[in-house]
Amino acid sequence: MIPNLQIALDNNTLESALESIRLAGPEVDIIEAGTILCLAEGMKAVKCLRSVFPDKIIIADTKCADAGGTVAKNCREAGADWMTVICNATIATMKAAKEEIGELQVELYGNWTYEDAQQWLDAGIDQAIYHQSRDALLSGETWGERDLERVRKLIDMGFRVSVTGGLTKETLELFRGLNVYTFITGRGITAAPDQAQAARDFKAEIVRIWGNEE
Amino acid sequence: MIPNLQIALDNNTLESALESIRLAGPEVDIIEAGTILCLAEGMKAVKCLRSVFPDKIIIADTKCADAGGTVAKNCREAGADWMTVICNATIATMKAAKEEIGELQVELYGNWTYEDAQQWLDAGIDQAIYHQSRDALLSGETWGERDLERVRKLIDMGFRVSVTGGLTKETLELFRGLNVYTFITGRGITAAPDQAQAARDFKAEIVRIWGNEE
Repeated sequence: MIPNLQIALDNNTLESALESIRLAGPEVDIIEAGTILCLAEGMKAVKCLRSVFPDKIIIADTKCADAGGTVAKNCREAGADWMTVICNATIATMKAAKEEIGELQVELYGNWTYEDAQQWLDAGIDQAIYHQSRDALLSGETWGERDLERVRKLIDMGFRVSVTGGLTKETLELFRGLNVYTFITGRGITAAPDQAQAARDFKAEIVRIWGNEE
Repeated sequence: MIPNLQIALDNNTLESALESIRLAGPEVDIIEAGTILCLAEGMKAVKCLRSVFPDKIIIADTKCADAGGTVAKNCREAGADWMTVICNATIATMKAAKEEIGELQVELYGNWTYEDAQQWLDAGIDQAIYHQSRDALLSGETWGERDLERVRKLIDMGFRVSVTGGLTKETLELFRGLNVYTFITGRGITAAPDQAQAARDFKAEIVRIWGNEE
């Protein structure tokens, strides 16, 4: 399968987010209302993204840790298709959120274990978001071998894995051979002089690398 | 020291939050814009609470996991005194947030360790929020001995510890002998027929138990 391209809107204001997404939005598969934006503008941000892009997958990156049912209901009513939960939320919180919104993504931060991950799968939650480790970044690697191994293991367990952190068109090659579900980028697109072209370039590179794989 | 009383506003709308706090607000020490409210209404919720209660300590319960500097700047500019971070955020994220807002509270969820906690102290972060464990709740205890031991250990390490989860006026007695920094309640006050009186009753019970301790 050809990986999706997701744009993360980590703007501080709704106006700025709408400006960021206006040109690139039609080119990407998934639009994310980032945590910064959700906390700054509330569910109004999700509602406005839904208004402007009625047919895209929209994610509310709430990184929900508690009160899963209530937060998920608010996200769904605002028009989000999916939402994120933090990996150290309890299974009860995750189940309550899933019950409301149908599909969740687990954000991997800190000391999660593969035993935790199996519990998420057992609860019917099969999406995870892997962030580039700061350790790899500090040691000068873009994505370390340890990161890639973890992504591979999660995919082998049955997860659809989204990856994020310092992604550029050039770094996609590092993931060749991995069935990444989605590549998430923010400023990789929104900071480009021609945002629509930047999104198309990302997509073209994804197709070039993954287009011939079965 | 006599513990503080904090009201958590986990409303879905700003209007409802303002209605909840109107009567009880003057009686409590600290007002929290809960995660549900922050995600639903954004920083407008914090701004409005600051407008209505210019002299109270106001907390934005963002449970921030990433982008600490940006989220903290937005909280500070909205008028929050403190904000929360999730315990599995990196130390770099916590430091960036502290740099912007000055004071942080670490929300304890999942598998944190005392080694983590020492790192927070070393970074100058000496507030933690302990949630009643679901395990204790399911086993029929209000607050289990294991919870109380953890709270005690954190206090002994040097943390100012806030406790939350299923607190009623009657359960305060369980904490006798512990130098709890703050008791956090939501519906314990907001669902009462007379909210101002409910807050005063909480405070009176706190003073009764802790008023004579040194």
